[in-house]
This record gives sequence, C-alpha cells and structure tokens, in this order.
Amino acid sequence: MKTLKKAILPIGFKASGIASGIKKSGKLDLALFYSDSSAKAACQFTTNKIQAAPIMVSKRHLKESSNFKAIIVNSGNANCFTGQMGLKDSEETTQFLAEALDINKQNCLVASTGIIGRRLPLLKIKEAIPYLINGLSRSGIGKAKLAIMTTDTFAKEITVSFNIGKSKVTICGVAKGAGMIAPNMATMLAFILTDANITKRALNKALGVSMNHSFNCITVDGCMSTNDSLMLLANGASKNPLIKEGNRFNSFVKALNIVCLTLAKMIVRDAEGATKFIEVKVRGAENFADARKVALSIANSNLFKTAMYGENPNFGRILASIGASGIDLKEKDIKIKVSPLNKKDIFADASIGKGKFSAVVYTSDLTPEYIKINAKYN
Amino acid sequence: MKTLKKAILPIGFKASGIASGIKKSGKLDLALFYSDSSAKAACQFTTNKIQAAPIMVSKRHLKESSNFKAIIVNSGNANCFTGQMGLKDSEETTQFLAEALDINKQNCLVASTGIIGRRLPLLKIKEAIPYLINGLSRSGIGKAKLAIMTTDTFAKEITVSFNIGKSKVTICGVAKGAGMIAPNMATMLAFILTDANITKRALNKALGVSMNHSFNCITVDGCMSTNDSLMLLANGASKNPLIKEGNRFNSFVKALNIVCLTLAKMIVRDAEGATKFIEVKVRGAENFADARKVALSIANSNLFKTAMYGENPNFGRILASIGASGIDLKEKDIKIKVSPLNKKDIFADASIGKGKFSAVVYTSDLTPEYIKINAKYN
Repeated sequence: MKTLKKAILPIGFKASGIASGIKKSGKLDLALFYSDSSAKAACQFTTNKIQAAPIMVSKRHLKESSNFKAIIVNSGNANCFTGQMGLKDSEETTQFLAEALDINKQNCLVASTGIIGRRLPLLKIKEAIPYLINGLSRSGIGKAKLAIMTTDTFAKEITVSFNIGKSKVTICGVAKGAGMIAPNMATMLAFILTDANITKRALNKALGVSMNHSFNCITVDGCMSTNDSLMLLANGASKNPLIKEGNRFNSFVKALNIVCLTLAKMIVRDAEGATKFIEVKVRGAENFADARKVALSIANSNLFKTAMYGENPNFGRILASIGASGIDLKEKDIKIKVSPLNKKDIFADASIGKGKFSAVVYTSDLTPEYIKINAKYN
Repeated sequence: MKTLKKAILPIGFKASGIASGIKKSGKLDLALFYSDSSAKAACQFTTNKIQAAPIMVSKRHLKESSNFKAIIVNSGNANCFTGQMGLKDSEETTQFLAEALDINKQNCLVASTGIIGRRLPLLKIKEAIPYLINGLSRSGIGKAKLAIMTTDTFAKEITVSFNIGKSKVTICGVAKGAGMIAPNMATMLAFILTDANITKRALNKALGVSMNHSFNCITVDGCMSTNDSLMLLANGASKNPLIKEGNRFNSFVKALNIVCLTLAKMIVRDAEGATKFIEVKVRGAENFADARKVALSIANSNLFKTAMYGENPNFGRILASIGASGIDLKEKDIKIKVSPLNKKDIFADASIGKGKFSAVVYTSDLTPEYIKINAKYN
C-alpha cells in the first residue's frame, strides 16, 4: 500500500475550483468533482435534525439514481435555515450543472458550507458553472481542495493506492472543516474518489466501518453542524476484479480507513485556535461504543481542554469527565496516564477496568484564540 | 413574602467560618452550620458516577439517621479520587466534629470543594474544629458563606420569609460555585436552612421540585462535578402549623423556589470569566423535559456562547444546537428571537412549535478569561 499526503486523482476523475464571488474575499469558493464514467456513490450526512438544503437535495438524488457523475460544492454559504427557497436553490444548482454537462440533475450531488441563514447567490453560481466545467482537469484537484475551505488554514488531502491482483486501485480524499467538529460529522465536508470496481453494497458498508473509527471519533467543540457531508464516488475505472463483501473487501476497507482517519486527524490538527493535538484512548470498556462514549466525554470537556492548553496536569478533570459519561464504573478501577504536556502532541490514556474494548478519539485544546475566531465569525 | 439578598439565619441556627490552613492563601476555608435543635434533612447530590468521599459519607449518615445538627464544609480540597483513605478522612471529620459537639457523627453532614485527587489535611481540620465551634453565632453566617467559596468573586446569599398562620417562617440559603456548573449540579455547593416545621416527606418533595427548575436549569460549561451537594435543614423552630404535602405545601415551595432560583442565577452571574448573563427560553415543547433539553443544547454550545461574547447575532448557531438536541423537530416550525447583544443581560427565545411546554435555562458566555482561569487553576 502506498500513501501520499497529497491529492492525486484516481483514473477517470477530474476536478476544478473557481472564485464565483460567494466569498466577499474573492477566494476560491466553488468546486466540482467529475467522473468521466458513471460512478456509484455512498454518502453519510449529519445526524442534526436540522439539515441544510443541499443535504436534502443530495439525499433525494441518492434515492432517485444509482449513477453519479458530478459533485458541486460551494463554500462561504451553508444554504441552511433557508426554507423552501433554499431547497429550490440547491436543486437549481444541480439543474444548471446537469444542463451544462448534458446529464440529469439526479446524477449530481451538492454540498455547501459557510454562514447559515442566508440565500445562496444562485446567479453567481449559474454564471460560474461554465467556467468551472471548462477548468476541469486532473490537476484541477489543486484548486478544488482549496475551494471547499472556510476557516481552514491548510488543505486536507491524502491519496492511498494498493493492488488488487494486477490492478492498481487508488483512493483520493480531500476535506474541509476546522471548527465545530464533533462526532457525527459536525461542519465537515469530505469528498473521496476511487477508481475501485466495487459493489454498491460493499461501498456503503466500507464507508460505515471507516466512518465509525475516524470522522465519528473526532471532536473539536462538541457542536454538531447542519451541513456535514461525506461523499464517496467509485467509478470502477481501475478495472480491478470486483470488490464485494467477503471478496477483496478487507483490502479496500484498510485503504479507506487510512484515507478517512488521515483526513479526520488533519481536521483536528487544524482546529480553530488549537495549540495541541490530543489523542484520548480509553481502554477496558465492555464494548467499543462505551469506550468511545467515555473518550468523547473527556475530549468534549471544556475543563480538560483548557487544562491541556495550560499544560496543567489536572487528572481530576479527566476523572470527573469519565464519571460524567454515563457509563457505570468504579473509581478504584480507573487508571489515568497523560504524556508530558509541554509538547504539541498529547496522549491521554484512561483504563476503566470493565472489559477488553478500547477506542481512540482525537481532539484539540480550547484556547483564547478559538474564542476570538468564533466571536467574530459571520 | 419578604426577600432579602443577604443571609439572615432562621430561628435556632448558628454558623461560623475560619481559615484552617487548607487554602495556602490563608483565606477562610472551613465552615460550620449548626442547629440548636435536631433538624430534618433533604439533600441532592451530583449524578456523576465518581462521587467525592464527603458525599458518600453524607449519604451514609442520611441513611443511618433522621436528625441532623451540623454541616461541616471545607473549601480548597475536594477530597475526591482519594480512595479508602479519603472516605476515612471525611468520616473522621464528622467524628471529630461530633465529639466536640457531644453528638453522634451520624447527626453531621459533610461537604468539600476544591482540588481533586489530594488527601484532606485532616490534622488542620481537627485542630480547627474547637475554634470553629467556639465561633458559632447568628452573625457567623457572614464568615461561613465566605469559607465555602473557591473561585467565586462574590458570596451567594438570600433570605426569604413568609407567614404560615401567625408564624413567620424563614428560609436562608448560601451557595458557592463559579465554574464547571452544569445541570445535575456540577461543582456547586448550596446550604439552605429553614426554621419551618415540615414533614420529612414534604421537605424532600419540595427540594426536588425547586431543584428541577433552578439548579438543574443552569449551565456554565457543561461539565459535571464529583462534589455537588445541596443540603437543606429544617429545624421546626418557627413552630408554624405543620407543612405537609397538600397542607401549606405550596407556600413553602414558592419560597424555596425563590431561594434556589436566586442562588442558581447568582452562580451563573459569577461564572468564571463571564461577561454576559444569558437566559435561554424554549417554548412550544411537548413537555418540560424536552423544552429544557433543547434549552440546554443551546446553552451548552461553545459556538453559541462565543457568539454571545462577540455580540454576534449568529442565529445559525442557535438553530444548529436546537437540531443537535436530539428532539425531533422541523426547521419551518422554529422561531428564534434574541435581545440586543450589546447589553450584559441577554434573552434568547426559541419556539419549536410542537406543544405547550416551556423551560428557562441560565448560562454565561464563553470568554478568553474563562480559559485563562481554567488553564491555570490547580
């Protein structure tokens, strides 16, 4: 298996990114991911009860179609809390794109990130689409990965390739998301493209497995967004022997895990205002879900996070957050270890003495800079 | 009904407070609340699975006895995560006190607040107890209310009196707690003393009702402590006609509500580093529990709290936290109003259009100062 911390598109994919004017700053704000041939799609969306319009439109298209050619993504405007008009705007975005590409809108997915509660500047998007399509190329991923960003300070990208028989299969992922990241994918967008030849069922299952140990194991501030979307397209262009559950499935999942976990960890590394990258491992739980619940209870504690910022080894706060997790446990069974706090990377390890399962959650510290960024963002 | 924002002890109570040396700063750190005659007790403790030693000892005494004469409280050391030795230390604290007062240790309650994970300096407490008892007086509440404080910047106190027939009944409360306050009483201590003549059953029920709409409706940082205790003593010295469920109960609950809600709101006003006092009202829920759940989801959102600090009317963050509450609801039914943000007191009002119930939760903003305080505290 070969891993490269750079986005290299798999066979049959192109991308592009432009500044359509949605962002007043004039930065890149519209991205397109495109597959020459029809691709299968697997998606995961926020579990927030309020979901942005692009998610509702993408979900509808996922019901109506099994073949996807394009994903259009804008940053700078979340198109959320925009009611029926917002739905229409996302639907029309896919309609304009489909017409320009001469496909059906049901073959397009759409995602948005940015400010909530404002109408999407649809005219700007409509005018930009021909240029966006014109810019499609294999190297266009370089602009696409930037066009999906909001408060991110660096692009999140990874490419993993591996062999199935004599075929080289590639999985490439890009993501955005800096603040407001919580399990169940709060304000995070990730687009993963692969040339793997895989059944739809196996694709969905692989994504579920990888999500559970990556994007659902990171938290920055415990807030869950309305727009989180993870979209995975597989176009089969590598012509590898078909991947199904039980056949070559594990190799694919192993590679997808690396893509998802790498992107997820990059998101935490770029957490708003963070000075520390913190790995919280909880061991000795009765099952994975309990272990993750305890780890998240620690990782989401403002008191723990400020203690990490202050390089203050306050074990009591870890203990209190373990006790607040809701899992039944006894003080005498708990063992806590924390690595030296004067480093950028911190490892906290808690054992709760109930069973054999463990989970790792990634988080950041809580800093005055986080507050400055989020007090002003609008 | 008469309300005074100052602690005036009811008939038959005395108090005192001294600096025993637990706090290195030399500040007051040991308090005693004392009733001349035996009092009934009702208590509520943290629901954190890790509970400090003084809570376990107090719970034991509440099982073993129905008559209480004294509550001893130290600040500066939480006596939590201290194992069997910690239990022994809290037990011995009550033993020393009982011997000096010539009562049984089962007639004493104990509470602690401060750093977690360090042994209580038992010798200092033992040596201080005679002086503490010697200092007991009606005006001693002035020192007692200070001796329970940790990072508090002002004492929380309230006295409410009302008539039952010709008898004047008084309820006096003092509390501490500045950071780490969440529903289910995270790191909060409150001591409420009344001369009411009331059945034990009515006393417990009244406390449950009042808690539910006061201390369980405040949140500063969502963290739940290991030491939270609310202790209510009723000594019957006002000789009022007996209060039972169904008889004079509502007058008592009404007064107790004022005591609890006033103390709870004072705790939020003194939240670590806060610049705003925020009242979050959620209306239109199917029941009170749902309304409070949604209100807490808003009030605990770091993004909402930083937006309030930045005086940034970001409705999207309120919306996202409503959606993240877990309550099933529809975007189109949600209405949000927020009072002008350039004031110290902010009112946020969200209607979710599902039913007739409402709840109010009190919180503070999240500020760089909160982080400074908590990064260093140890």
